[in-house]
Amino acid sequence: MISEGTIIARATGAGSSAISLFRLSGDEAIEIVSRCFQPKSKKKLMDQKCHTVHLGTLHRDGTSIDEVLVSIFKAPHSYTGENVVEISCHGSNYIQEEILRVFIEQGAKHAQAGEFTLRAFLNKKMDLSQAEAVADLIVSESKAAHDLALNQMRGGYRQEITLLRQKLLDFASLITLELDFADEEVSFADRTELKKLLQEIKSKIKSLLDSFQYGSVIKNGVPVAIVGKPNAGKSSLLNVLLNEERAIVSDIPGTTRDTIEDTLTLSGIEFRFIDTAGLRNTTDKIEALGVAKTKEKVDNAKVIIYLFDPNDTSLPEIKIAINELERDGLIIILVENKIDLIEGNGFSPLVQSLNDSNNEIPYDALCRISTFEFDTLEKLKKILLEKVNSISTKGDIVVSNARHFEALQNALNTILNINAGLDSELTVDLLSVDINEALEFLGEISGEITNDELLGNIFSKFCIGK
Amino acid sequence: MISEGTIIARATGAGSSAISLFRLSGDEAIEIVSRCFQPKSKKKLMDQKCHTVHLGTLHRDGTSIDEVLVSIFKAPHSYTGENVVEISCHGSNYIQEEILRVFIEQGAKHAQAGEFTLRAFLNKKMDLSQAEAVADLIVSESKAAHDLALNQMRGGYRQEITLLRQKLLDFASLITLELDFADEEVSFADRTELKKLLQEIKSKIKSLLDSFQYGSVIKNGVPVAIVGKPNAGKSSLLNVLLNEERAIVSDIPGTTRDTIEDTLTLSGIEFRFIDTAGLRNTTDKIEALGVAKTKEKVDNAKVIIYLFDPNDTSLPEIKIAINELERDGLIIILVENKIDLIEGNGFSPLVQSLNDSNNEIPYDALCRISTFEFDTLEKLKKILLEKVNSISTKGDIVVSNARHFEALQNALNTILNINAGLDSELTVDLLSVDINEALEFLGEISGEITNDELLGNIFSKFCIGK
Repeated sequence: MISEGTIIARATGAGSSAISLFRLSGDEAIEIVSRCFQPKSKKKLMDQKCHTVHLGTLHRDGTSIDEVLVSIFKAPHSYTGENVVEISCHGSNYIQEEILRVFIEQGAKHAQAGEFTLRAFLNKKMDLSQAEAVADLIVSESKAAHDLALNQMRGGYRQEITLLRQKLLDFASLITLELDFADEEVSFADRTELKKLLQEIKSKIKSLLDSFQYGSVIKNGVPVAIVGKPNAGKSSLLNVLLNEERAIVSDIPGTTRDTIEDTLTLSGIEFRFIDTAGLRNTTDKIEALGVAKTKEKVDNAKVIIYLFDPNDTSLPEIKIAINELERDGLIIILVENKIDLIEGNGFSPLVQSLNDSNNEIPYDALCRISTFEFDTLEKLKKILLEKVNSISTKGDIVVSNARHFEALQNALNTILNINAGLDSELTVDLLSVDINEALEFLGEISGEITNDELLGNIFSKFCIGK
Repeated sequence: MISEGTIIARATGAGSSAISLFRLSGDEAIEIVSRCFQPKSKKKLMDQKCHTVHLGTLHRDGTSIDEVLVSIFKAPHSYTGENVVEISCHGSNYIQEEILRVFIEQGAKHAQAGEFTLRAFLNKKMDLSQAEAVADLIVSESKAAHDLALNQMRGGYRQEITLLRQKLLDFASLITLELDFADEEVSFADRTELKKLLQEIKSKIKSLLDSFQYGSVIKNGVPVAIVGKPNAGKSSLLNVLLNEERAIVSDIPGTTRDTIEDTLTLSGIEFRFIDTAGLRNTTDKIEALGVAKTKEKVDNAKVIIYLFDPNDTSLPEIKIAINELERDGLIIILVENKIDLIEGNGFSPLVQSLNDSNNEIPYDALCRISTFEFDTLEKLKKILLEKVNSISTKGDIVVSNARHFEALQNALNTILNINAGLDSELTVDLLSVDINEALEFLGEISGEITNDELLGNIFSKFCIGK
């Protein structure tokens, strides 16, 4: 993964706007810009101090492109650790195009996706998990996702992993030493201490792995499927949940109606609602295809809202439906709808029998609503939030990155192997192989162990200009 | 038009991107930002020098929002002439929303459209025509439009107008003096000199007015209508002209296919092609409505390409069509199509008779093409460019702003009135009224004479953030 020369990209959004920002990074960044930039002041751009801003005119072949502000950052005091120049120009499409053109003529290359952050990583301005957090930060749409990304950008759990890895590395050295003296059967590494360390690593990894379930739903939104018989009121519930929020969400700049069509943010956590209208009425082949697709979505849901009309459903029906849906880690909320139709303030007979602890229906919460009664909907939202927050390990440290989850999972397996090896008094050379494998998986998280494929995978997901 | 307090707006485009830029302007801009900003360095933001950049963390109620770069510009050395702070943050929707929120909580107001530039105008950092040029610059899509806006932003013809106005103002003072001594019938203002000045102003205004025809088409694109009988090949010509360019135009960042659907940029000048398919076949009422609409478009065209198939048209037919279309200032290009079907290299009889100078058909150019022959299309493009450039007054100074055109037109009328008044030895008080009117119209261009309505009209057309 080589990244050489001076790169340029627009860092701000596409289209015309008041201002656009371009960024150059590389040894020659300041020199390249100064060739096309006529500052208002007499002093040359090259001679200006780090972290200063300069007004002047950009030109190409003697023709003015624009009046711009140029900010200078000198290596290593910049985002990438290289010389960086930021140019803020009037944001017309024509000017944007001309600026790219003039600097590419002057020898800059158009940056690849994520290349600025890749350089920051290669120049040790941040480690790999911090770099990944930058990409997460830019796309985070909710407070919870944003806080996760910002925490990871600041180091997050990476420091702990690095520390544990360092300790394991010390043992690995001792084990390697034992290999050199294999004939003499000495042991430099204290097996009891090693076992203690393995136990420590194991419990740390386990708690991080547990947090991923929460981290992943926070980062990507919590998929919630509303299921139930036809006419239970699924679509009404969906509409009433989304319509209420829409007015609030549309205040957010840049959020178009399309993307919020079926998401709802409650206390900073994004919920993605899945429409499962028509899950039950399999009459012909084409409809069956639709049902299969809906089932797939339900299978990926983190939360099921099972909605029922107490006058149109029986306990056995609910039992069959819920038993079909139930699986490990799924949150099931039973929701009685249309309570405005129930006379008096009593419970329906169905809900009374549901409340009976012997009903053998596995559900996490029972809620009674009417789509016409604001308070009851608020109660449902509160339950949704409580149940999702209950997944959280309550620790500050949450894994949200699927790549980290995989590396942690692999590391855990090798740790278990080492432990088993110690118990069965495995030979030192085989033990060494397992330890090295564990070191590698742990090192992948912070980027101490990298390869081009890994880096390519990570940075290609960035937007250009970051 | 009062603009008070500290304002904030996002200056870059909407949606998530690598970086977003926010701008605050006002007495308290630096103070407001420093309340929410924890710099990496020890030094307070308030104590930093003008034109410097600072890394740090923005927070709201003790919670971090983002790591940002903050640039400081102190009054009067800023765009608006006030204290200005620019904040460049990670461009997620969530962060953008939080930044607006925190600064509004801290007492900043969301900026109105154009309010930054309005403040720059009110603080005399630029005059009115320069401010208008900023808006033009941001939306300019072609080199020619961009150059016009940039030239106007740098002063353009405004300086000359200001100078001429100043001279007229001197005469106005003398005339006012004469009013004070009305009984004594003295004349302080030299009538011959005044007439010379009026002549100078008149010829300047006239040349500026002439340039508007060019400036307006440059700024808004040159409307070109392709007309002709059905099957002359209008749609093929349009497609072949646009398709060729599309591949090139789509390289431009931010230019979507929708907006280039029927525009073509040749040597930096934008041409807007108008589809007039079906102009001639008026068979029923509904079709007639379509034809009326097309006719309206043709009436607004600057250039008519009259396309004909030499085997399917006669000289009288062309004569009728062209005479119907002809009007002052319209460029008419006759284009013979399908020359690939003509045997040998000779001219068709129709073109031969068109070349005959006695045909009485008023056209500006004759061109022979085949949509299958690249060279012939290039020739047509060259003719288009030549004819449009010939509208230009060849001066550097071009009026592209409709408001300026109107003010110049009004000024010219009053100048003619003053002249007539001088010739008919009008009384000094009536002369004075005319001169003051002329001063007002000329003053409107640079903004020496303004009123709230005028300013409101101008700045409401800006985007927010500029």
